[in-house]
Amino acid sequence: MNFDGLPLYAMVAATLNAEITNGILLPNDRLPAEDGLIERFGVSRTTVRKAVESLIARGVVEIRRGKGTFVTQPKLTQDLTTLTGFAEDMLVLGLHPSSRLLDKRIVPASSEVARHLNVALGAHVYRIERVRLADGVPMSFDETYLPLEIGEKVVSNDLDVMPIFDLLENKYALPLTDAWYQLEAAIANEHVAQALGIEVGAPIFLIERTSYSGDQQPVDYEKLYYRGDAIRFSTKLSRRLGS
Amino acid sequence: MNFDGLPLYAMVAATLNAEITNGILLPNDRLPAEDGLIERFGVSRTTVRKAVESLIARGVVEIRRGKGTFVTQPKLTQDLTTLTGFAEDMLVLGLHPSSRLLDKRIVPASSEVARHLNVALGAHVYRIERVRLADGVPMSFDETYLPLEIGEKVVSNDLDVMPIFDLLENKYALPLTDAWYQLEAAIANEHVAQALGIEVGAPIFLIERTSYSGDQQPVDYEKLYYRGDAIRFSTKLSRRLGS
Repeated sequence: MNFDGLPLYAMVAATLNAEITNGILLPNDRLPAEDGLIERFGVSRTTVRKAVESLIARGVVEIRRGKGTFVTQPKLTQDLTTLTGFAEDMLVLGLHPSSRLLDKRIVPASSEVARHLNVALGAHVYRIERVRLADGVPMSFDETYLPLEIGEKVVSNDLDVMPIFDLLENKYALPLTDAWYQLEAAIANEHVAQALGIEVGAPIFLIERTSYSGDQQPVDYEKLYYRGDAIRFSTKLSRRLGS
Repeated sequence: MNFDGLPLYAMVAATLNAEITNGILLPNDRLPAEDGLIERFGVSRTTVRKAVESLIARGVVEIRRGKGTFVTQPKLTQDLTTLTGFAEDMLVLGLHPSSRLLDKRIVPASSEVARHLNVALGAHVYRIERVRLADGVPMSFDETYLPLEIGEKVVSNDLDVMPIFDLLENKYALPLTDAWYQLEAAIANEHVAQALGIEVGAPIFLIERTSYSGDQQPVDYEKLYYRGDAIRFSTKLSRRLGS
C-alpha cells in the first residue's frame, strides 16, 4: 500500500480498513481496544482516536452504545436501472428472499392511491402490508395497493411465499412494462420501525412505485420503506448535452 | 368530488387536501384550529383529529413544535434520468440556483476518494465544500473532490457564481459523458445540519456521484447531501423480461 503523503492517523485507518476489506476483520467483529491499537501501531491515543473517527465517518465501523466499536454490516448495493421486484433483486445479490404478510384488507382509495391507480377517490382497493427479508433479515416494509379485481386474485395466494410481481406476470397474465419511481429520504415512524425491527427516527429510503402493464394501465402502487442502514441503490446516467 | 365509501374523517381530510392542492391554503399557512374545523364540518373532535393525522401521515401538513399545524412546503421533484448538475436542475424547476463556498483546500486522498478518482491513496486532491441554494433556500450540501490539476484550475474561479460542471465543460474542455450514482438515505450529522440549517437527525438523501469525461477518466467525485424534507427524485424504469 502506498502511504506517501498520508498523515499517521490516516495510515492507521487505511491499515484497519484494508483488514476489513480483506476479511481479516468481519462484519459485526469488535474493533480491538484503543490500548491494543496504540501498542500495535506505536502511535499516540490521539492518533488512534482520529483513525477510528475517520473509519466511523466513512461508515466502516460504528459505535454500538455501551458495547464498543464494531465493523459495520456493509450495505447491499441494489441496481436501480430496470423494473425489478424485491425477490428478483435479492436473488441477483445471492441472497434468499422471503416475505412476512402483516395485513391484507380492502380499503377506500385515498386521493394519493386513487391518483396512482387511476381509480375514483374512495373506490375499493386492496392494501397489503408485508415485511421483505433477505437471508432472514428484514430489509423493507412494503405497502402495496392493487385495484380490487387484481387484488382479490392476488390475496388468494400465500403471500409469504409468492412475490406479487411473479403472480401478476405468470399467474394472471399481466406482464409489467414499466414503472414510475419516486425516491425519498425519510425517517422511520413507529409503525415502520416496528415492522423492520429498527429504531424510530432511523433513516428510511422510501420508494413510491407505480407499475404499469401493457396497456398503460397501472396495476400496482407500492410504498417501499427500505432500511437506510442496510441498502443503497446504484445507477449510471448519461449526459445529454444541449438537451 | 366523489366521497362514496369514504369514512367521515377521510372526507374531512380530502376536503382540506383539495383546498391545499387548489391553493386556498398555501404552503406555511397555519391549519385552522380544531374547534374551527369541528364547527365547519359538523363532526366530532375525534374525527377532526383523525383527519389531521391522515394529512400528517401523507406529508400534506406538519406539526411545528409549539406553533401549531401548518401546510408543508411541497418537495421539489427532480428528474433522475440524465447526468445534470444542481444549477441545471434548479433552472428546469424554474428556480434560481446559487452557491455558497464554505471551504476549498488540498487534502490527501482517502481510500474512498482514491478509488473514485482513480488516483493513488494519499495523492493530493482538491476538496470543495459548498451549500447549494434554490431561490435562496439551502437545498444541498456538496462535498466535491477533484484531481489536483483540474482542481487548481476550478478553484481559481468564483465558485459562488460558477457551477463546477459549467467550468469543466465550457472553460476547461472536459465534456462530461456519464456518471455513476449511489443513492442512500441517511440522517444529518452536525456538520451537514449546520450547513443546511436543519436539525441533526433530519433525513438526508445522499448521492455519491463520480462523473467521467470522454476518455473514461473520472474528473469529479461528489457527495451530495440533499435535504430529505425538501426534495425527491423521480425516474421511470422499464422491465426487461427474461434478462
